[in-house]
Amino acid sequence: MSQSSDTQKATASAWFEDLRDQICAAFEALEDELSADIAATLPIADELRDMPPGRFQRKAWTRVEGDPAAGGGGVMSIMRGRLFEKVGVNVSTVWGEFPKDFAGQIQGAESDPRFWASGVSLVAHMRSPLVPAVHMNTRHIVTTKSWFGGGTDLTPMVPDETDTRTFHRALEAACDKHDPEYYARFKAWCDEYFFLKHRNEPRGVGGIFYDQLNTGSWDADFAFTRDVGLAFLDAYLPVVRRHMAEPWTPEQRQHQLVRRGRYVEFNLLYDRGTSFGLKTGGNVEAILMSLPPEVAWP
Amino acid sequence: MSQSSDTQKATASAWFEDLRDQICAAFEALEDELSADIAATLPIADELRDMPPGRFQRKAWTRVEGDPAAGGGGVMSIMRGRLFEKVGVNVSTVWGEFPKDFAGQIQGAESDPRFWASGVSLVAHMRSPLVPAVHMNTRHIVTTKSWFGGGTDLTPMVPDETDTRTFHRALEAACDKHDPEYYARFKAWCDEYFFLKHRNEPRGVGGIFYDQLNTGSWDADFAFTRDVGLAFLDAYLPVVRRHMAEPWTPEQRQHQLVRRGRYVEFNLLYDRGTSFGLKTGGNVEAILMSLPPEVAWP
Repeated sequence: MSQSSDTQKATASAWFEDLRDQICAAFEALEDELSADIAATLPIADELRDMPPGRFQRKAWTRVEGDPAAGGGGVMSIMRGRLFEKVGVNVSTVWGEFPKDFAGQIQGAESDPRFWASGVSLVAHMRSPLVPAVHMNTRHIVTTKSWFGGGTDLTPMVPDETDTRTFHRALEAACDKHDPEYYARFKAWCDEYFFLKHRNEPRGVGGIFYDQLNTGSWDADFAFTRDVGLAFLDAYLPVVRRHMAEPWTPEQRQHQLVRRGRYVEFNLLYDRGTSFGLKTGGNVEAILMSLPPEVAWP
Repeated sequence: MSQSSDTQKATASAWFEDLRDQICAAFEALEDELSADIAATLPIADELRDMPPGRFQRKAWTRVEGDPAAGGGGVMSIMRGRLFEKVGVNVSTVWGEFPKDFAGQIQGAESDPRFWASGVSLVAHMRSPLVPAVHMNTRHIVTTKSWFGGGTDLTPMVPDETDTRTFHRALEAACDKHDPEYYARFKAWCDEYFFLKHRNEPRGVGGIFYDQLNTGSWDADFAFTRDVGLAFLDAYLPVVRRHMAEPWTPEQRQHQLVRRGRYVEFNLLYDRGTSFGLKTGGNVEAILMSLPPEVAWP
């Protein structure tokens, strides 16, 4: 079948929400692990040492009410903690009609602009310049065709070979369970996508990225997408734990703020999800939750 | 004549450099006016109190050497002072051929992609959240047609009616010397251009903006463009002087960092000069000099 059934859509949406819950729980557990004793050794502001471990706050939003071309909504989860300076996890399930000038650019929407889309997306910016920032997204899109997409990529401020290997191996293992060619293909796609052309430099050390995945088996593609979401935790949590107790210098912090500028440049200049969302009247607060809390272009 | 002569091009380029010199001198004089006595009363870091008044540093750049489609270059002038947190003034004179996919979007370049362009552009970000940020640009572009463009707009963090009136009146006076309809037309154009559609909010309190100005008299259009450049100083300097000695609160500074985020969003999402420059292989450092030194998306 080229179109997903209502049951498949509901199943995918429910999974994205379930993954969100697993990730939020894992991130809150990391906040707990950064004990007051460890926090006391880190170069953070006094008011942060005394704060309790961070917890996610949730905020629901809906698309324009009464507009048949714009239905659904989502939930933003945001945490500002001792370890996570700012992490946003958005789930959304939206449907309606693509604006005419966009419909022609979307697979399967050329003749019929109606769409349904559901997904979870996450960006984490850490207080420590030694703990990499990270992005993860998985999504299911339905037009007259239907497909899955997703991926995750790591953005260290100071690249570390062990971290890069840890991150990539977890993704490779998830890919290999499904297709021996997936990892190489989706790693290359990630390197190509997360690239700042104007600076001729990659955003970070990569990961995997895939889009328009439809092998003919909805079950297989959904199973792969679930495994990518779960592999994200296997890929990222060990990297965080390896560095979360390491103190840093003011120079390292300043370097982090400058590198975050590159993140902003990428998201506003190149990221298709960002420009697409902003130009189609998406929820601005949810879309721009990915921007870092403090940034410098010195 | 629809094309500018070599003498006209050289005259315009020389004027943009002269205006740059006048502006840099006026801004350095403001740095001197912020005496150590005043600095001692402001909530700035200790190391700033003891620094000498800021001075511009210049750095020249050239377009790709040996490429006949990309000639010329420019000079960046940047100052990081006690009053001016970061101010960049760029002059550039470049020529070559527009890439094919751009040529069709540029007046007079549809059939012949060759162009010549010269201009001066400036963005100032101030330490004080009570002193507005400002942008000014004037330019002369030649394809098979030729025209002038430019403008200036004020971005206060806390709008102040007196400042807005001072700024606009100086621009109105300059416009009125040339055409009784210019001010109203170019003010409306500015409001339309410097608008963040995704947030449904203006970037600041406006100013004037004009493009593709060719009345048939090169001399008249150049005289107007010169007057816009000079009016910028009449418009902005009194606003700076009115607020430069006022102390501010940490809350006002934080508000400034957040408002600067809107500036980044505008420049990377909407500004034609920025996206055009980055996509045609312009000088990244010069183009992104407009980005604020410290920014927050909390």
